[in-house]
Amino acid sequence: MKIAVIPGDGIGPEVIDQAVRTLHEVAPAIETSYFDLGARNYRATGRLLDRETLHEIRQHDAILLGAIGDPTVPAGTLERGILLEMRFALDHHINLRPTKTMPGAPRVLAGDANLDLLVVREGTEGPYTGNGGALRVGTPYEVATEVSVNTRFGVDRLLREAFERAAVRRQRVTIVHKPNVLAFAGSLWTRAADELATLYPEVEVDHMLVDAAMLHLVTNPARFDVIATDNLFGDLITDLTSALGGGVGLAASANIDGSRRNPAMFEPVHGSAPDIAGRGVADPTAAILSTALMLHHLGLSHEANTIDQAVRDHVASRGQQSCSTEEIGEQIRSRVGSESLTPPR
Amino acid sequence: MKIAVIPGDGIGPEVIDQAVRTLHEVAPAIETSYFDLGARNYRATGRLLDRETLHEIRQHDAILLGAIGDPTVPAGTLERGILLEMRFALDHHINLRPTKTMPGAPRVLAGDANLDLLVVREGTEGPYTGNGGALRVGTPYEVATEVSVNTRFGVDRLLREAFERAAVRRQRVTIVHKPNVLAFAGSLWTRAADELATLYPEVEVDHMLVDAAMLHLVTNPARFDVIATDNLFGDLITDLTSALGGGVGLAASANIDGSRRNPAMFEPVHGSAPDIAGRGVADPTAAILSTALMLHHLGLSHEANTIDQAVRDHVASRGQQSCSTEEIGEQIRSRVGSESLTPPR
Ligand SMILES: CC(C)[C@H](C(=O)O)[C@@H](O)C(=O)O
Ligand SMILES: CC(C)[C@H](C(=O)O)[C@@H](O)C(=O)O
Repeated sequence: MKIAVIPGDGIGPEVIDQAVRTLHEVAPAIETSYFDLGARNYRATGRLLDRETLHEIRQHDAILLGAIGDPTVPAGTLERGILLEMRFALDHHINLRPTKTMPGAPRVLAGDANLDLLVVREGTEGPYTGNGGALRVGTPYEVATEVSVNTRFGVDRLLREAFERAAVRRQRVTIVHKPNVLAFAGSLWTRAADELATLYPEVEVDHMLVDAAMLHLVTNPARFDVIATDNLFGDLITDLTSALGGGVGLAASANIDGSRRNPAMFEPVHGSAPDIAGRGVADPTAAILSTALMLHHLGLSHEANTIDQAVRDHVASRGQQSCSTEEIGEQIRSRVGSESLTPPR
Repeated sequence: MKIAVIPGDGIGPEVIDQAVRTLHEVAPAIETSYFDLGARNYRATGRLLDRETLHEIRQHDAILLGAIGDPTVPAGTLERGILLEMRFALDHHINLRPTKTMPGAPRVLAGDANLDLLVVREGTEGPYTGNGGALRVGTPYEVATEVSVNTRFGVDRLLREAFERAAVRRQRVTIVHKPNVLAFAGSLWTRAADELATLYPEVEVDHMLVDAAMLHLVTNPARFDVIATDNLFGDLITDLTSALGGGVGLAASANIDGSRRNPAMFEPVHGSAPDIAGRGVADPTAAILSTALMLHHLGLSHEANTIDQAVRDHVASRGQQSCSTEEIGEQIRSRVGSESLTPPR
């Protein structure tokens, strides 16, 4: 197995270092090749993600990414030129973002609200297509548009994944959109979901307005199992669910081409956090959990479970004291070592 | 002073009844005329909001609206045909949605996070313009688009309002958008804010990605004073801030034409809640607080403050027991009576 590793910007390299070392602890045979993409490379060469690099990356079984984004580069240049470019070029239409409250993790909600949900976010359509434009820029008459593009093909394949995932979870899919205002796209999502639902009689489907979802996520998050939603709504919802589920420090994600023609990409939900970069204080847990998602995807479930369990045990024991990136990585790895000795459950 | 009252659908008439009675308690001279818009009228006449009705409504000093939306009518028909139609026809480009935690109100966040913020949401642009379309509807090749339209004119006038409001609050505006992905619209918002900021040197401006805002709102809501944002982001953010600030039962809003050529419209943030309609259990507090926002807007600050204070006192004393719509209205009105006797502070 060969993994393409893209440490990226800011805290990316710091958390990826811990993630790769943890990965090698459970799966020493996995090979890694590193790709220098991000602000440093862009400043040095003017390149974002070129054809050759993309071609090389494609030869791997999966991609592990740290974070992309740097304040010294015009806003969005790296995000669009590297991260979104990769998601689109590799047809990562399925973006999986699970949240499961871990004992010991910080809680932002009062009461004992536990989250155990999976957001299935569309990754290649919606307002993310770069389809838009601007007229009379810089004048008082400037007009700027952004076009959300939605296709039955794209919505169907995303929803199918959501139903499949729900079927092996708690059999409930909540379709989150805004059909009362976004009438064209919303109607497409609603019809596609209702038609697909007939093929999954065991899965309960409900439709929820995205604004109402904000409210239900903080007042009754336990009502959600699988949330299927569009690219932009999914972006907002998953920052919220990450925060509610213990913080972005614990939130991992997978970008998948459902046809499996292209390698999937695994990354923490958090960004490059330039404010704390280089200080060795970033929490590498989300990056480490992203390797577990990757191992699951590659069929190495025992190895994946070992990491998951080590992280849960670590989080349960870590209390309030703040540890360095290295210390957290070490502590998780020491648990991986002992977990590995116990037979698979 | 003449107020156009639109009770609307679901719990709308129930909460508006309490709101109007409270309004008359503090300002008996205000005249009200009722407009029957919503599902009942639509089913009976096939009409949404016609020219003549709109013309009559325009002759008033303000509009008080309950809620629009009914499950027996195709999704969005009433919302777009009446509510959004009114916001657009009356150029309600400023949508104000304040949240201030009240002692005694339910808390969803752990810790003692208090919110005291004002969302200044744009009301006539963004993805709400109805600009979009669909091709090959009902086939596997369906394509649906939604266009977000943003103008320098529209963004400028919204931001100016946000800066003005911040100047008399805690002097801080957070511009919330997604320029790293929505490059055209995001760049317009960013430039407009940065240029306007030079005219308000006393106001601190920061730019925040909308996804990050979701996170900060639940982890550190006290950092926000005024949030300026687009129509759709504002829709999502304000359901979240309502929930965090004590629930939609307490969230009031104002839709304003900044030029004052058209009457402003005041409405609770909550919807028509068909599930509990007709049972007399809806909380009328948000509708009552909407009348206070209306009185403030009409320059009747003493009357407005009387209602605000009565609501705060009531919320502080109401505890966990659930009261009927009528009881809550009565209890607030009895406090309005005694508040009115004390001289203005
Ligand atoms: C960095 C940005 C382009 C990205 C997105 O909007 O998808 C990020 O917020 C995420 O959620 O992965
Ligand atoms: C009912 C709907 C059209 C409306 C909106 O999206 O603006 C509502 O959610 C609101 O926030 O006032």
